[in-house]
Amino acid sequence: MVNADTLVARLAADRARADARLETLFARPAVADARLEAAMRHGVLVGGKRLRPVLVYAAGRALGAADTELDAPAAALELVHAYSLVHDDLPAMDDDDLRRGQPTVHRAYDEATAILAGDALQALAFEVLAETAHPRLPAMIATLAHAAGRDGMVAGQALDLAAVGGHPDVTALATMHRHKTGALIRAAVRLGGLVAVTEDDPRLAAMERYAEAIGLAFQVHDDVLDVTGDTATLGKASGADAARAKPTYPSLLGLEGARARADELVEEGVAALAPLGEAAAPLAELARYMIERDH
Amino acid sequence: MVNADTLVARLAADRARADARLETLFARPAVADARLEAAMRHGVLVGGKRLRPVLVYAAGRALGAADTELDAPAAALELVHAYSLVHDDLPAMDDDDLRRGQPTVHRAYDEATAILAGDALQALAFEVLAETAHPRLPAMIATLAHAAGRDGMVAGQALDLAAVGGHPDVTALATMHRHKTGALIRAAVRLGGLVAVTEDDPRLAAMERYAEAIGLAFQVHDDVLDVTGDTATLGKASGADAARAKPTYPSLLGLEGARARADELVEEGVAALAPLGEAAAPLAELARYMIERDH
Repeated sequence: MVNADTLVARLAADRARADARLETLFARPAVADARLEAAMRHGVLVGGKRLRPVLVYAAGRALGAADTELDAPAAALELVHAYSLVHDDLPAMDDDDLRRGQPTVHRAYDEATAILAGDALQALAFEVLAETAHPRLPAMIATLAHAAGRDGMVAGQALDLAAVGGHPDVTALATMHRHKTGALIRAAVRLGGLVAVTEDDPRLAAMERYAEAIGLAFQVHDDVLDVTGDTATLGKASGADAARAKPTYPSLLGLEGARARADELVEEGVAALAPLGEAAAPLAELARYMIERDH
Repeated sequence: MVNADTLVARLAADRARADARLETLFARPAVADARLEAAMRHGVLVGGKRLRPVLVYAAGRALGAADTELDAPAAALELVHAYSLVHDDLPAMDDDDLRRGQPTVHRAYDEATAILAGDALQALAFEVLAETAHPRLPAMIATLAHAAGRDGMVAGQALDLAAVGGHPDVTALATMHRHKTGALIRAAVRLGGLVAVTEDDPRLAAMERYAEAIGLAFQVHDDVLDVTGDTATLGKASGADAARAKPTYPSLLGLEGARARADELVEEGVAALAPLGEAAAPLAELARYMIERDH
């Protein structure tokens, strides 16, 4: 059972902590281009569940890292995620007007500025991570870059675009999600973990298996919400997947089948945490909470 | 006087060395998305003067670095440069059809793929740099990220877009170029240098002053070539700046004034190298050669 009160309070605290770190990145008097800076800020600071920072904090703490050491990796992950949303929303990609209940960056500014803001947010992610000068920084940079690039998130978005109007099966859909969102979610627990332990620590691999499963569960649940949710709660257009003929878990497995799959994946993820013992309890709670959310 | 034969041979060797390193990044059997991979390859491997890698090698050698240590920073710089060209050519930005004598990535593929290929090339740059696991990697990552982002290259592109149709003076034009191309050129000599010496070595600052001046000289010369060159030699449309009412050095200083300014900047750059003594001779030759090129 999830102790909802404690979990919700901790989530709120971690989100506030991540937001505070992200805010500091934009609290500076002189900038080269004010419009670019404002567009970046809009892309990062308007709303957001901060799932990736929350996972960095939870994973790092489970292995003994201090919160202050986790702030930079948490911010870096969120910056990469935010840049990807800015670019995914572009007219040439998903062509979305609304994100987190607000106009998307290219709607609030313009297309060129949105492309550039995304580009600069990606660079900023690496800049923030490098500032830690952590002894395992090479592994941390490699983890983030690999997860963000052609073998991870960007490949996933390319696979997603290629799938529109096609007829992928559940395996192809899972492959797409494992890249598009899974890679960064795995990177979140790995970066958090690397703050505390070396690359060969088996608990890192266990947390990555957890992240792989719950990342997919998160997506299945997202697909379910796109069918059952409403635009006001979601902060983005509901029914958008069906309108675009995007393949989804409910379209392939039915609504109940998709819900059952999400439950199954969460339990797989929780089971993978066994090597961490009691220290993993917050990660397990978080996994179960993620598929109970309504937005 | 430039010893042209030696210099040209060395440039050719360094370009071949950089190309070989970049080729290895795409020599792999399995990729997540073949179309994305091909678009990235197109963005990097079709033509290119490899100025930034050439500068990394020249700067690193001047301070005693071995070529093998310079391959990764050289490749990383070129990957960032290549991604920026892919994005700058997009319809929402400069809307160019031709680059390095070939169709631009969004013309050879499509707009979404070009955005994603650029995004993945940026991530790959950091991945390649991190592989070195150099003791000064934090400073190297910070240098690259800072030069590439909101305080460097991306800001320059934003300033460039904002200037179209406006009437900037020579100072505003220089500010734009210092960000758009100058930041990465400064980063090239700094990264090459950091392979060999620590951040506080005064020769790094001297090489950065050199890079600042020759980066601007390069741009002034580029503007001159846009007026005097022909499309076949340039590999891109000549007269493009005038057609777009883009402010240029010839439009502000006249053709002869612009040529004189380029000469002056090169001599400023060469003078800045004084603290390096004889070791800087190849850097000085390179600077003079850059404003003699016809493409």
